[in-house]
Amino acid sequence: MDDPVLLTGAGGRVGQAILRDLADDYDWRLLDREPLPREKIPESVDDDAVYVADVTDDDAVLEAVDGVGGIIHLAGDPRPEAPWDSVLRNNIDGTHTIFAAAVEAGVEKVAFASSNHAVGAYETDDRTPDLYRPHDEYRLDGTEPPRPSNLYGVSKASGEILGRYYHDNHDLSVVCVRIGNLTRGHPPWNYERGQAMWLSYRDCAHLFDRCLQADYGYEVVYGISDNERKYYSIDRARDVLGYDPIDNSAEFEQHPKNQ
Amino acid sequence: MDDPVLLTGAGGRVGQAILRDLADDYDWRLLDREPLPREKIPESVDDDAVYVADVTDDDAVLEAVDGVGGIIHLAGDPRPEAPWDSVLRNNIDGTHTIFAAAVEAGVEKVAFASSNHAVGAYETDDRTPDLYRPHDEYRLDGTEPPRPSNLYGVSKASGEILGRYYHDNHDLSVVCVRIGNLTRGHPPWNYERGQAMWLSYRDCAHLFDRCLQADYGYEVVYGISDNERKYYSIDRARDVLGYDPIDNSAEFEQHPKNQ
Repeated sequence: MDDPVLLTGAGGRVGQAILRDLADDYDWRLLDREPLPREKIPESVDDDAVYVADVTDDDAVLEAVDGVGGIIHLAGDPRPEAPWDSVLRNNIDGTHTIFAAAVEAGVEKVAFASSNHAVGAYETDDRTPDLYRPHDEYRLDGTEPPRPSNLYGVSKASGEILGRYYHDNHDLSVVCVRIGNLTRGHPPWNYERGQAMWLSYRDCAHLFDRCLQADYGYEVVYGISDNERKYYSIDRARDVLGYDPIDNSAEFEQHPKNQ
Repeated sequence: MDDPVLLTGAGGRVGQAILRDLADDYDWRLLDREPLPREKIPESVDDDAVYVADVTDDDAVLEAVDGVGGIIHLAGDPRPEAPWDSVLRNNIDGTHTIFAAAVEAGVEKVAFASSNHAVGAYETDDRTPDLYRPHDEYRLDGTEPPRPSNLYGVSKASGEILGRYYHDNHDLSVVCVRIGNLTRGHPPWNYERGQAMWLSYRDCAHLFDRCLQADYGYEVVYGISDNERKYYSIDRARDVLGYDPIDNSAEFEQHPKNQ
């Protein structure tokens, strides 16, 4: 993509994973609600491409999207336990602001950070913990309706529906990535669920790179590494986006101290 | 249901259709944002069971739901062309207020007025107008993911997800009724789409009666009469709720003046 790419929530964990590997691959614009410390801004990004703004601020968002070709929209309250008022404003209203501005500015593609919490209630007592283990063949593939496990998950599912609307009615290309458990370096130790939905930093960057490069209409995909334990299918991400992850939480399952 | 039943948006079209047939069948509490004119309040309902309150007002809603066994939640901005700020507040936030209060007050069942606009984008150019005609066998059955045709539809789909969350995580029984085209007396003339999704007043009252009487967990059903033209299945409403509609828009297809 030759046009600039806007990354919202650039200072967060997902944003930093993306910038670590893709800093030099795009003409980035970074947006965050808080001023970004210098170490979170790649050297290749000029100060005037860094926006301090709330995603619910229509005018600020319109200025930031002017002339961009793609958006990776990560901004929002990331806490699974976030209260309703916060996710209503930051996640639902903020995501509407991004999609509406994208259409107004003629942006081609938006990759929206959805979450495993949008489907967390599929992890019922009778399915777990088998669900998290290699032998279990139960899979969610992105075609199932959301079943959120918290109000944060409700807000992410609502963001997916906003994306569906803006795709169907305004021709925007939208991919919603239900992100698993992103941790740096290694999967969480002693946490089967986290291992089943692990997303390594480099697979995360590669996945969002594919979201900017591939052609699609509206997609819901899962964002996890190629884990041996898994209950999210990554087939759709492979087929439509060309996602080709290289990490697998099984290669890290024991804490080095316990080996 | 012996406990009182709260009807929100009681002064609107759906609320009035329900009260016309079921005024004496329940111990009603009526809530509306505007004071209800006397002719909209059944004689059986005392003045102190009529609440003037906004559904985004947590305290007022908690007072209205205290001691009720069921809620029919219709309140919201009903305009398909309603702007985002209005549906965000009145429909999404307001519906959250109702569900949260229902759980806090120990309410058993909530019937939520969703809408055909939550799935309006299935009516693509290549499917219409065949979709609206008796020979066409395409059906939506409530298992398909929302594809809203406007921001009002986005808000209704978000309300369905809130219902899913409050059912899965708080054991509330929730039925979402994707209401078709409710008109009094006869279906809309010369409007195939409206005839395909017609819901007569008496079928509407009967359907919400069944929502209060039947046992269910979480359901999404279509609210239309037994029309010959249709692209919404009413099988699920029949099977789970015992819905047994008596009207059919085909019996009215010509304006009497044209017959």
